[in-house]
Amino acid sequence: MSSRQYHDLQPPTRLLLGPGPSNVDPRVLRAMAAPLLGHLDPEFLKIMDETKQLLQYAFQTENYFTLPVSGTGSAGMEAALCSVIQPGDKVLVGTIGYFGARICEIVARCRGQLTRIDAQWGTPLDQQQLHDALKQGDYRVVALVHAETSTGVLQPLEEISRMVHEHNALFLVDAVTSLGGCPLKVDDWSLDVVYSGTQKCVGSPPGLAPITFSARAEQVMNSRESPVQSWYLDMSLVRQYWGQERFYHHTAPISMCYALREALRLLYEEGIETRWCRHETNYRALAAGLQALGLQLLVSEPYRLPSLTTVSVPAGIDDARVRGRLLQDYNIEIGGGLGELKGRIWRIGLMGFNSSRTVVLTFLAALAATLNAESFPACAKEAVQAAERAYSTAA
Amino acid sequence: MSSRQYHDLQPPTRLLLGPGPSNVDPRVLRAMAAPLLGHLDPEFLKIMDETKQLLQYAFQTENYFTLPVSGTGSAGMEAALCSVIQPGDKVLVGTIGYFGARICEIVARCRGQLTRIDAQWGTPLDQQQLHDALKQGDYRVVALVHAETSTGVLQPLEEISRMVHEHNALFLVDAVTSLGGCPLKVDDWSLDVVYSGTQKCVGSPPGLAPITFSARAEQVMNSRESPVQSWYLDMSLVRQYWGQERFYHHTAPISMCYALREALRLLYEEGIETRWCRHETNYRALAAGLQALGLQLLVSEPYRLPSLTTVSVPAGIDDARVRGRLLQDYNIEIGGGLGELKGRIWRIGLMGFNSSRTVVLTFLAALAATLNAESFPACAKEAVQAAERAYSTAA
Repeated sequence: MSSRQYHDLQPPTRLLLGPGPSNVDPRVLRAMAAPLLGHLDPEFLKIMDETKQLLQYAFQTENYFTLPVSGTGSAGMEAALCSVIQPGDKVLVGTIGYFGARICEIVARCRGQLTRIDAQWGTPLDQQQLHDALKQGDYRVVALVHAETSTGVLQPLEEISRMVHEHNALFLVDAVTSLGGCPLKVDDWSLDVVYSGTQKCVGSPPGLAPITFSARAEQVMNSRESPVQSWYLDMSLVRQYWGQERFYHHTAPISMCYALREALRLLYEEGIETRWCRHETNYRALAAGLQALGLQLLVSEPYRLPSLTTVSVPAGIDDARVRGRLLQDYNIEIGGGLGELKGRIWRIGLMGFNSSRTVVLTFLAALAATLNAESFPACAKEAVQAAERAYSTAA
Repeated sequence: MSSRQYHDLQPPTRLLLGPGPSNVDPRVLRAMAAPLLGHLDPEFLKIMDETKQLLQYAFQTENYFTLPVSGTGSAGMEAALCSVIQPGDKVLVGTIGYFGARICEIVARCRGQLTRIDAQWGTPLDQQQLHDALKQGDYRVVALVHAETSTGVLQPLEEISRMVHEHNALFLVDAVTSLGGCPLKVDDWSLDVVYSGTQKCVGSPPGLAPITFSARAEQVMNSRESPVQSWYLDMSLVRQYWGQERFYHHTAPISMCYALREALRLLYEEGIETRWCRHETNYRALAAGLQALGLQLLVSEPYRLPSLTTVSVPAGIDDARVRGRLLQDYNIEIGGGLGELKGRIWRIGLMGFNSSRTVVLTFLAALAATLNAESFPACAKEAVQAAERAYSTAA
């Protein structure tokens, strides 16, 4: 091997306003530097128990079976699906974007019998269409995305949950971009399996996937005839480590658990409703500012995600160049479009620690300057004023 | 929810001498506190490339397809197996302990056609037996554990590799406890798929699983007829994110990658052979000390793992009470036995940062005192002297 030089790690300090990871509170970064413990150390077991309690609070559930999967949000998706789907099970998936399509892909790999309903990207599902589909099939599981990170759409869940349970199916929900960022009430809404990621509104680095199973979902898991095809993501095994049995399954990612506990502690100190409110207020100010810049939001009013705002790239403007300039000149990251929206939208996240007035105003000023440099007339002052008006209305 | 109190995170400072996690260099802990980057940020892509290069160095391979799986060592095991095994494939597994049995479990879940050869726990595989088995079946994959964490046995690989390739099978190796702790030469030994964990001799917290695939293994993966059953652990997709394509698959665990890069940088600075030598020297001193205390090593001389030493619990001594005292009185963690060795052995790890003279002498003194308190006559002075003699012989 040639002798190479590897320098000190010195990542630039970015303002992460893409679809996640987001910046996190310094307390969360510091938590990861705490001394490691063994994964069966009594002191670590206490930390696990507290993390479970705090996750229950974040999910607004009393589900005993609530824990972080040792992988990123996509691991949570697969853990949720493969734990409750058996080969041949009929599964109905309603997709409203890229991540719904990923659910379909995983259902197929679990050898579920897939039926798929698609909404146009940028809109939520048509509930009547879903209702009709439910009447036609004897589904074991209905799955959909609560907060679609590819489009910025928030899918209402309460009414659908009622319909799903009328048809005796399990209701499985992707809450990767909603947990900690907007109302999500697992128990009140009777959601059966809900998973998320840590790097968005929860306010921790990527690496874990919070998940919760209702008693009904647990029963389905307990009465499986065939083992879960994934061993690593087999939640019926993992729960025996996070539960009172403490059976060793795999070595938990200790430092990531420290970070998650600290992020959830911050959420608990703030209060979940205050936090939802904060996300709503800052999104409204951002939206007002973006519109004052002359930009168009992709999603119509009642379905906008407070944690992720999508705007159309104006005609004649080069998507990648604007994002490149924001990164290079201002150390600001925003997201581009995924799939069919590639090159057509920007995705601007205000998640967890980054959902703040300072961030909104900083970003609007930087975006205005960048757009101007690209010959798109945009007035920073008007944008900031529009945001400020939104704040005073909220106050 | 009731109002609970969640205190500042303040884990005790343990000396982690179990089967892993081990303590890590403070530089590694500090690296995780660095500011987060997006998973497609050009600065993060550089960090990924460096991490890949450093992993190639640690594995002693030029395999392009070398990367960290976003999960712990067990995720690496499943990623390795499910990526190269198709339903119906004949797979031969040689087990020498608990983790070999786990390989069998995962092969079954991948619907591979499993043939299993077992060695007695505490010994390596009988090569003749393996040779005979190879002649009887047309195996696609042969899998075994290089460093068995449950027994402390180091399985010689070179001769087996030759046999496996004579029969045109892929050779898949678990190097969870060997990578960075004892000679492991992926290219020289023609190993096809090798995975490890970060929390042992690599010297990073748990959370990632380094993995490498030979060109031959990659070809097997490329010619699959059915998709890998796991989406999250489908390495044919993940390699397109770690490769030049940079296709988004899942959000990489940024902070864990920082830690891994720093741990690998420490390994690179030390030099892999110096590091192997350090593990060997400290293990010899520990073994000499343990024997001077009157304890018996489980594994016979040529097959002992330098990173993990197993000793029999002496007759009349309560396994759990000794481990409990070590933890409570000295903040030292050692491991108990797994599976059929439960209650019968202690597992003492000297891994990465913890493979040092200070640790060996500290541990011997603490163990002697603990054994004495349990009425087992053990002389700390003799143990330390025996260790010191081993050090002078090595020097």
